[in-house]
Amino acid sequence: MINRLVEKIKKTGAPIVVGLDPMLKYIPQYIRQTAYAEYGETLAGAGEAIWQYNKGIVDAICDLVPAVKPQIAMYEQFGLEGMQAFQKTVDYCHEKGLVVIGDVKRGDIGSTSEAYAAGHLGKVMVGSKVCRGFNEDFATVNPYLGSDGVKPFIKVCQEEKKGIFILVKTSNPSSGEFQDRFLQEDGKPLYEAVGRQVAKWSEECMGDTYSYVGAVVGATYPEQGKILRSIMPKSFILVPGYGAQGGKGADLVHFFNKDGLGAIVNSSRGIIAAYQQEKYAAFGERGYADASRAAVIDMREDIAQALK
Amino acid sequence: MINRLVEKIKKTGAPIVVGLDPMLKYIPQYIRQTAYAEYGETLAGAGEAIWQYNKGIVDAICDLVPAVKPQIAMYEQFGLEGMQAFQKTVDYCHEKGLVVIGDVKRGDIGSTSEAYAAGHLGKVMVGSKVCRGFNEDFATVNPYLGSDGVKPFIKVCQEEKKGIFILVKTSNPSSGEFQDRFLQEDGKPLYEAVGRQVAKWSEECMGDTYSYVGAVVGATYPEQGKILRSIMPKSFILVPGYGAQGGKGADLVHFFNKDGLGAIVNSSRGIIAAYQQEKYAAFGERGYADASRAAVIDMREDIAQALK
Repeated sequence: MINRLVEKIKKTGAPIVVGLDPMLKYIPQYIRQTAYAEYGETLAGAGEAIWQYNKGIVDAICDLVPAVKPQIAMYEQFGLEGMQAFQKTVDYCHEKGLVVIGDVKRGDIGSTSEAYAAGHLGKVMVGSKVCRGFNEDFATVNPYLGSDGVKPFIKVCQEEKKGIFILVKTSNPSSGEFQDRFLQEDGKPLYEAVGRQVAKWSEECMGDTYSYVGAVVGATYPEQGKILRSIMPKSFILVPGYGAQGGKGADLVHFFNKDGLGAIVNSSRGIIAAYQQEKYAAFGERGYADASRAAVIDMREDIAQALK
Repeated sequence: MINRLVEKIKKTGAPIVVGLDPMLKYIPQYIRQTAYAEYGETLAGAGEAIWQYNKGIVDAICDLVPAVKPQIAMYEQFGLEGMQAFQKTVDYCHEKGLVVIGDVKRGDIGSTSEAYAAGHLGKVMVGSKVCRGFNEDFATVNPYLGSDGVKPFIKVCQEEKKGIFILVKTSNPSSGEFQDRFLQEDGKPLYEAVGRQVAKWSEECMGDTYSYVGAVVGATYPEQGKILRSIMPKSFILVPGYGAQGGKGADLVHFFNKDGLGAIVNSSRGIIAAYQQEKYAAFGERGYADASRAAVIDMREDIAQALK
């Protein structure tokens, strides 16, 4: 799947992943009204609104980008009905040929991580039958529990040729609270130790040029990105924090390798709710999907300029 | 909810939480066969088997213990149908008067943690209506993203009088890989820094004697438990790792305060699959729920002896 991701990035010229992180306030009123008219102001109504909204965006951007990244929390908040919208979205993106990165940030003790890995990337046996749960192509993984918590994901990646991105240095303002603590052993921050471990894990699961084991490093920390890029040469970096969170095109150059690859940049709000920005306001509510398309094209250009 | 948990622990004399972490191999064959006969060897069949199995255990133990802890990964692996079994289990445990700790280990950047907190502990607005998702009473939270990732949970705890347990020192063999790294600032391990931060957070959200903000510390690390008990005096400690993972009654004494409170010990496999152990084999498959009940009574006695 990492080979497929690399190939699709080359083909589209867009090292971009669109974050499908729907909030009800982003969804045009006409979509919400139609959904509520059919299902009521209920969790099912919210799920339907999210699904219709996502579908419009996916149709508008699927030829431009290699991948999407649904943030499962935005679905999980609506309970089972939200999870249904998540599943429909994952399946629809697959139909449209997109690589799906499940932003699930799971991670637990060994036997439990096995279950998460099976549910999101792998398969389960029910009696004599093989069944698949959510079936994304990549998942994000939290490293706090150490190798026990990560290896079950790597095992499934090896079996299924799927991938993971491990949280190393996250994009949020307080990410440094624990991740930046300097370690006694070498005077370097914790995130570097996590990065070195990701580099080791990445060797266990190589695609043609990059590993199935990648990392998450926020666009909001470009200097740290530069160091982590060199620590984890074989890992793709999933870069959140571009756009709405403050990361700029010029900040991104450090996250890429000299081959122009090695990073994929996420934008969520900046694309899916583009029509709510002044810049794209002319599209109007009914043109929300076209506004998303325009925002992707602008982002592609912004990154291309930065990488020149 | 922390007050209610304390009250129920006093009433039952059992600082015990039963981990409802079903695996198909634990489920008696007759339950699986009935479920597969109705729904096929499908995710729905697995979900039905899990739900029927859980129901039997909950009926058998609900008067003995204050709380249950379903591990969501064990449901999530069966996709939407597994999540349905999770929801049914949570709702049924509430009907039976049990406190439900959702072992979800969620945690993300601020806006995303808000969504997780809403979905598991709080509410969402859909149009003009208030809706609730999974609606557990407590959730477990991963601290790797720092305060941004934790505070949205604390806010919901304040509003809803619910609680969280933050991962500090987990029970698994490799938990030390990052959690035990010594910090340059004070020569102490990372988990102590996390514990000190939990102590700060716990003050923002106090019940009568204990905080709504608790911690997870594994029974498998009793010496670390002793230190963390003193660092976080107001936090309840959720203690996994007893029984199947190797933690013994005698190890538990350090996790409790002098008031005999302050900790709640989890056992999953050791209780829900008790009938598969030699000790409880006489109950047989059909007596699996009674075997669970016997195992709870033995565990209560083991802990009482240790705390004498």
